[in-house]
Amino acid sequence: MKKLNVGLIGYGFMGRTHSNAFRKVNQFFKLDYQPVLKAVCARNEEKVKAFAENWGWESYETDWRKLVERKDIDLIDIGSPNNTHKEITLAAAKAGKMILCEKPLSMNAKEGEQMTKAVEKAGVANMVWFNYRRVPAIALAKQLIDQGRLGRVFHYRAKYLQDWTISSDLPQGGAGLWRLDASVAGSGVTGDLLAHSIDTAIWLNGHIDTVTAMTETFIKERKHALTGKKQEVTIDDACAFLARFKNGTLATFESTRYARGRKNQNTFEINGEKASIAFDLEDPHRLSFFDHKDDALSRGWRSIHVTDFEHPYMDKWWVPGTTIGYEHTFINALADFLGGLGTKSPARPNFRDALDTQYVCDAVLKSAKTMKWEKVGVSKV
Amino acid sequence: MKKLNVGLIGYGFMGRTHSNAFRKVNQFFKLDYQPVLKAVCARNEEKVKAFAENWGWESYETDWRKLVERKDIDLIDIGSPNNTHKEITLAAAKAGKMILCEKPLSMNAKEGEQMTKAVEKAGVANMVWFNYRRVPAIALAKQLIDQGRLGRVFHYRAKYLQDWTISSDLPQGGAGLWRLDASVAGSGVTGDLLAHSIDTAIWLNGHIDTVTAMTETFIKERKHALTGKKQEVTIDDACAFLARFKNGTLATFESTRYARGRKNQNTFEINGEKASIAFDLEDPHRLSFFDHKDDALSRGWRSIHVTDFEHPYMDKWWVPGTTIGYEHTFINALADFLGGLGTKSPARPNFRDALDTQYVCDAVLKSAKTMKWEKVGVSKV
Amino acid sequence: MKKLNVGLIGYGFMGRTHSNAFRKVNQFFKLDYQPVLKAVCARNEEKVKAFAENWGWESYETDWRKLVERKDIDLIDIGSPNNTHKEITLAAAKAGKMILCEKPLSMNAKEGEQMTKAVEKAGVANMVWFNYRRVPAIALAKQLIDQGRLGRVFHYRAKYLQDWTISSDLPQGGAGLWRLDASVAGSGVTGDLLAHSIDTAIWLNGHIDTVTAMTETFIKERKHALTGKKQEVTIDDACAFLARFKNGTLATFESTRYARGRKNQNTFEINGEKASIAFDLEDPHRLSFFDHKDDALSRGWRSIHVTDFEHPYMDKWWVPGTTIGYEHTFINALADFLGGLGTKSPARPNFRDALDTQYVCDAVLKSAKTMKWEKVGVSKV
Amino acid sequence: MKKLNVGLIGYGFMGRTHSNAFRKVNQFFKLDYQPVLKAVCARNEEKVKAFAENWGWESYETDWRKLVERKDIDLIDIGSPNNTHKEITLAAAKAGKMILCEKPLSMNAKEGEQMTKAVEKAGVANMVWFNYRRVPAIALAKQLIDQGRLGRVFHYRAKYLQDWTISSDLPQGGAGLWRLDASVAGSGVTGDLLAHSIDTAIWLNGHIDTVTAMTETFIKERKHALTGKKQEVTIDDACAFLARFKNGTLATFESTRYARGRKNQNTFEINGEKASIAFDLEDPHRLSFFDHKDDALSRGWRSIHVTDFEHPYMDKWWVPGTTIGYEHTFINALADFLGGLGTKSPARPNFRDALDTQYVCDAVLKSAKTMKWEKVGVSKV
Repeated sequence: MKKLNVGLIGYGFMGRTHSNAFRKVNQFFKLDYQPVLKAVCARNEEKVKAFAENWGWESYETDWRKLVERKDIDLIDIGSPNNTHKEITLAAAKAGKMILCEKPLSMNAKEGEQMTKAVEKAGVANMVWFNYRRVPAIALAKQLIDQGRLGRVFHYRAKYLQDWTISSDLPQGGAGLWRLDASVAGSGVTGDLLAHSIDTAIWLNGHIDTVTAMTETFIKERKHALTGKKQEVTIDDACAFLARFKNGTLATFESTRYARGRKNQNTFEINGEKASIAFDLEDPHRLSFFDHKDDALSRGWRSIHVTDFEHPYMDKWWVPGTTIGYEHTFINALADFLGGLGTKSPARPNFRDALDTQYVCDAVLKSAKTMKWEKVGVSKV
Repeated sequence: MKKLNVGLIGYGFMGRTHSNAFRKVNQFFKLDYQPVLKAVCARNEEKVKAFAENWGWESYETDWRKLVERKDIDLIDIGSPNNTHKEITLAAAKAGKMILCEKPLSMNAKEGEQMTKAVEKAGVANMVWFNYRRVPAIALAKQLIDQGRLGRVFHYRAKYLQDWTISSDLPQGGAGLWRLDASVAGSGVTGDLLAHSIDTAIWLNGHIDTVTAMTETFIKERKHALTGKKQEVTIDDACAFLARFKNGTLATFESTRYARGRKNQNTFEINGEKASIAFDLEDPHRLSFFDHKDDALSRGWRSIHVTDFEHPYMDKWWVPGTTIGYEHTFINALADFLGGLGTKSPARPNFRDALDTQYVCDAVLKSAKTMKWEKVGVSKV
Repeated sequence: MKKLNVGLIGYGFMGRTHSNAFRKVNQFFKLDYQPVLKAVCARNEEKVKAFAENWGWESYETDWRKLVERKDIDLIDIGSPNNTHKEITLAAAKAGKMILCEKPLSMNAKEGEQMTKAVEKAGVANMVWFNYRRVPAIALAKQLIDQGRLGRVFHYRAKYLQDWTISSDLPQGGAGLWRLDASVAGSGVTGDLLAHSIDTAIWLNGHIDTVTAMTETFIKERKHALTGKKQEVTIDDACAFLARFKNGTLATFESTRYARGRKNQNTFEINGEKASIAFDLEDPHRLSFFDHKDDALSRGWRSIHVTDFEHPYMDKWWVPGTTIGYEHTFINALADFLGGLGTKSPARPNFRDALDTQYVCDAVLKSAKTMKWEKVGVSKV
Repeated sequence: MKKLNVGLIGYGFMGRTHSNAFRKVNQFFKLDYQPVLKAVCARNEEKVKAFAENWGWESYETDWRKLVERKDIDLIDIGSPNNTHKEITLAAAKAGKMILCEKPLSMNAKEGEQMTKAVEKAGVANMVWFNYRRVPAIALAKQLIDQGRLGRVFHYRAKYLQDWTISSDLPQGGAGLWRLDASVAGSGVTGDLLAHSIDTAIWLNGHIDTVTAMTETFIKERKHALTGKKQEVTIDDACAFLARFKNGTLATFESTRYARGRKNQNTFEINGEKASIAFDLEDPHRLSFFDHKDDALSRGWRSIHVTDFEHPYMDKWWVPGTTIGYEHTFINALADFLGGLGTKSPARPNFRDALDTQYVCDAVLKSAKTMKWEKVGVSKV
């Protein structure tokens, strides 16, 4: 087994999910590579030290540039806020490191283009953590689609609903709340949540051609956690858009953090000529499937309990009927990444795939301003 | 179209459902017979008169014996409390009338035997209103079973749960509450609710061989609505039993009126070698079906929306996707009864079928006393 | 009880639901008025005669103008295709008849304005059969909203999905299929299905201000049932739009007849600051409700089984726990109409309310062409 | 942090879940103790070596007696088949080791008594891995009950259904299949599945007083994996029983491995005077709760998404709305065990608690033979 020395940047929510993945992947997947938790990096020394101890990172850094330059690091894993992705990527690519990057890829498509160019020029292995591709039920949807079970697709509809920012007392900015600060996050629900929906949609149904969107910021001002002052909120609290895919599918997408009662409801439904598929992340171990070819008497939506050994990833875990959880989507993704290293089919989504999602996000945000249908960009890299 | 003059006894809850059925059946079903609402009978003249006017009954009686003797009546429909079923049946059979009888057939199997003997000797058309056989989803279950979709059956489990008698302030006896008075109802949940579950079970899976049961009366005393005095409650508030079917199936049955949050939850699940079926009356337009022969990737419980023209009864009603309700089970049953008149396959369950259910009820109540397994009786009629 | 002589135009699907309502309403509701099934009208004499006999209409006509002129008719009920609504309304209003009209009100808002003007000028009682307002669960949603349970509303999303036109072999035009012929129906899913969603939305959440829409016709040509020739399909097979309500709510609406597995799925979800509500017509007896004020431990979406006597309309029907069906929405609506006659709060939606829905439909169809946000019209009548 | 040297016996399914728990617990829970994966023991040297390497066990043994005698081991974790539990426990207790033991505690109550006596005499910390107590939703049920939310309890019903042994081609005995061999497992579904249901029931609702049961072995003969010969199957394939709790609750319990379509469906429902609770392990992150004190209009079963920081264990894991899986029940249990060490409230269920479950299992199996109601045993230890 080849050792792969990892340097992780960021110790927040994603720092935890990634650390857990690096520690666990080899117990469950037979792989040629074994990640070594070499170093974790963050600015607060006291905290990063404690984090390193807790998770078993061998060392820590407080300056990501230093980490990137370390000779004993093979792979840089970017788990820090969105406004740091570009600079780190450019440096890491230059240093010849493999790169894993949290989603969304970048603050905007322009940055994403630079980043994609950089990793491709450097020829380094790269993947973006759109972890929901590795929910077994979503991977199963992909399998059923690839088998041609749907036929011509008429409709795609996706929602990503949360409710954690309804209170106007919630501040913006700082640890845990940088997602509410547009200067750090790039956008609100569009980059944070819709980026997931879009990545899944492109994976399952191909490219999106045109969009028309609306966004809203329901709470106009919030105290900023860093300045202590009330400041304008510049992220989108909610975003909805209509879309047409290149293959002719009509689509609706919606996301918000103001849907009372929906904590992390990421859903999609696809209606094909022969069959339909539906998914809801609040019940992540189930996939709904309607197959018109079933006999007329007994036809109905099937609720597939995606926990059998035949289902994607599930033979690696426990026994049929038992579920895995949120964290396993990261472990499955990491296993795919490691399994793809040095092969002709490296794991996806890579930076270029994530750039496609970024083009859609940019078109959506633009349309919300122009109030017109906008064409989704195509890579000129 | 031949006219069929109906005389209904009882104007309570069942008087209403039956009147509605007689009025509506011909608009929806093509039949050779047309029920005529000739006379309704109940002891309170003022109320029966008002009932007759409201529902369009041509006349009324206050003495059921008089009704039974009327020459212009072809069919006696018994919708009065359980302790009246036997006497009316014997008289009506003697008078050569067709008989429809509300469930349960009788206070006990002994009465049921007399009644069955009477109608069979008289050779009159007869049916018992176990209306749930005519829920389209349950009729669909029957169809799937008759197609051999289940294979060998291992398990049958049924529940019938309500919660309307939890309050100790609720009196027993009198209008609307005679079901709590054992001298009128014969038993509590066993005859009222489990009789439904048992009738369905026998229809779907054959005869029950042996049972072991327990019953309980949670509220020991209630004011009696007729006497105004606190009296011992002698019905069974709850009843559960284990059973073995003649075909080897293991079964559990349970019923109560003390299941908080369950208003009329009549459920069953059947597990066969090849497939399973489940039903819940709280969502009466759905049948759950799991077919093991579906491919391993997409296998799952199907939720069949039983509203297509292919489904039992549904081509008679509205359009696919639209539901019918509780009242329609009575109309469907009546249509079957009328459609079966004069044919070689008259509608079921007839009195003899209902007697089989009564044997099970008797064995259950006996077992609850003896605390032993009891053999289910077989007709000696 | 005052008799109300009804003249019904149309004997199709809606002719049946209306006839059933006229026959049943008085058995279940205490009302001052009793509809008399005086005459039914349709062009095919043989069929209209059979229909009259089946449903108990005293007479029939084959020319609606004659029906409208009959002195013994108090109320004209328009159940014929959309392209007849205007002319009949104008004549009936002129003749001083009360008018019930199937939805959508008209082919377009211009017609709707004329019709509204006519009935208001004539001062005749009028109502449009947007029957889903009388689904008890939807009426319950209205009650909860009127109680202020939601607080500020952030989001409204509605879908109305069917799948019955996916086959390209299905012809357009003629009996049962006029909904696929734009010259008769006015539009496709927009007028047929979205009109329902919009009426409900306005009722529950107020007026819609602006929209941006897309429509699609998936099957471009179909044989026409009347001409026997392949002709261009000019209806919208699918329509989706984004909207902003006057109260600031963001909304998405979508409808199609190409959603495999969705037979009549009319859904909405409303997210308020304090609570959320969701509904799905495939389980019409349930309303989902999330109340944030429930304690943090036990908070969750409630599935309200809308069958208790406390729930709208349900004390008129059977017993708690038992469901009513599709047809009852028409009976409930009729009861409201009759109950409102001669009072200061006549039943809604009246023609003016339905006109508001028509303005939204027009703006939606216009936006689908202009590909721009369109302002919803306001009555100049 | 104090090191706690662990010696694990068994490397099957439970060996994996336990190893995973020992590795992960400290990253997520703040604890005074840190398990050290000191040694794993199993008879097959090649396999145990590979297992040790995969999971990071420092050493391995092939004789459990040697492991128990090792001075560097503080805790013996018994993950081997049921017929080994007693002997290992007696030796480990004698050696003064803490003991964790897989469920069921023993082959029968007699063994369980010896084991309980041994650990209590030795005064060593002990716990049995009834992991489902640590499903957050079940722990939440316990909290709600302890808050008095249910009031007087009328009914308890539990099912544990699987379908993996329907095929008659499945052999019995040997690795992975010892659960089908009564000489190794003690019993079939009673000890394997119902033991879980019973442990949960006692925890939530107190002691069970009397039972009447039936068992069945559907497939009478299977090839034995070790002998290669067809042999009689002596386990119970299915078991159902009625019970009365000491507090007067009526109960039904059922388990089988022949419920087509149910992979690991462990359910319970409790009906109290004031509220009801229901759970289904196939959707382990949800708890259903019906609270009668909710207002009559909006009362309904709540589906609690048990993923908030307020919910048991969930503040230790990820973020609200994200699920944990099967493996986490073991980690939560281990955290409770470690957290309870040296305190006045050590984690439960201890051996004595598990013995109570064993008494119920024994009474159930006895009743299935005697066909009579049997009294549940009480510890004479």
